[in-house]
Amino acid sequence: MIKFEQFRVKTQEREVLIDITNEINNLVRKYNIKEGVCRIYIPHTTAGITINENADPSVIKDISNYLSKLIPKGGGLGYSFKHGEGNSDAHLKCSLTGHSLDVLIHENKLMLGMWQGIMFAEYDGPRNRRVFVQIQGE
Amino acid sequence: MIKFEQFRVKTQEREVLIDITNEINNLVRKYNIKEGVCRIYIPHTTAGITINENADPSVIKDISNYLSKLIPKGGGLGYSFKHGEGNSDAHLKCSLTGHSLDVLIHENKLMLGMWQGIMFAEYDGPRNRRVFVQIQGE
Amino acid sequence: MIKFEQFRVKTQEREVLIDITNEINNLVRKYNIKEGVCRIYIPHTTAGITINENADPSVIKDISNYLSKLIPKGGGLGYSFKHGEGNSDAHLKCSLTGHSLDVLIHENKLMLGMWQGIMFAEYDGPRNRRVFVQIQGE
Repeated sequence: MIKFEQFRVKTQEREVLIDITNEINNLVRKYNIKEGVCRIYIPHTTAGITINENADPSVIKDISNYLSKLIPKGGGLGYSFKHGEGNSDAHLKCSLTGHSLDVLIHENKLMLGMWQGIMFAEYDGPRNRRVFVQIQGE
Repeated sequence: MIKFEQFRVKTQEREVLIDITNEINNLVRKYNIKEGVCRIYIPHTTAGITINENADPSVIKDISNYLSKLIPKGGGLGYSFKHGEGNSDAHLKCSLTGHSLDVLIHENKLMLGMWQGIMFAEYDGPRNRRVFVQIQGE
Repeated sequence: MIKFEQFRVKTQEREVLIDITNEINNLVRKYNIKEGVCRIYIPHTTAGITINENADPSVIKDISNYLSKLIPKGGGLGYSFKHGEGNSDAHLKCSLTGHSLDVLIHENKLMLGMWQGIMFAEYDGPRNRRVFVQIQGE
């Protein structure tokens, strides 16, 4: 069985990680799969998807904040970004943290680690974004 | 159904992102899958795969250029790379942008976002490279 | 067929890449799959998974060493990490190199490139870690 779903995420800040674990868990439960995989795919070029800690909120803030020090909006390290829209930093951050993610399903459960949350990664918000989800299994 | 395919990419520069969306789309169309996934895998350690904007060519140039400022060929930030071949920067860039990528297939279509292209990421060219593609679906 | 497996990795250093290719290959051989995929997933937030060269050991040392220059333990570039556990650098490195990885299986063989090894990426060891593996195919 292969099922496709999608939902929206409205982001409120330019750079922020948003926990979408509940949304993903609800979709996985809907199909009652014993063994399989949940694929999450972000169809944007300035937003992506990653896994990180969802217990202490300072973790995801540290991640966003330090990424914007490493890759400042206009460029840095003697290089100025050329792309006219002025968001090359967001494009690069996306390629670093990635657009697609697989989470395993085993014995009807999404196999996240104890501290893991699935994080929508916004790098050029605020925007109205889409998340594609595909659930495959038996 | 699970099908394996491969093709070659000849890169002309040391560091460059090359749009291979058309090649991937042609393979996906060949198998006429309704729901499934297209996995792309790069069997190298100094080249990888990523998603980014294929509209304005300055985006992928900004990405390559800024990555080589962050991780210069010989090292930086007080650290000199030890690997004798002198391409540790390329090995690290690969691990950052990744070697494998899933793109979803839904209603016979590769579900790329409007601005997304599938980019072969060369970090130590020019070389003759391979791309593995696996298409799974029903 | 979809099979779930797991094993442990004991890491001895704070930051180190450990070659787990043999462990993965043994699991893949066990199921005698002709065409399929091996998914590797790390259920932690300060350790992940990546592909890189397993021939010259200086490559993976260069990767760990340079990552800790780019993202020092306490912060850098004018930013001090806020997370109380003091390992935000490890959380960020994980999101950069990733938590999930697909390696293709074709004609009963794990399709790694000649120089590729599958590397468990420890960023906050020493710890006793888990690796989830899912093998799907026909």
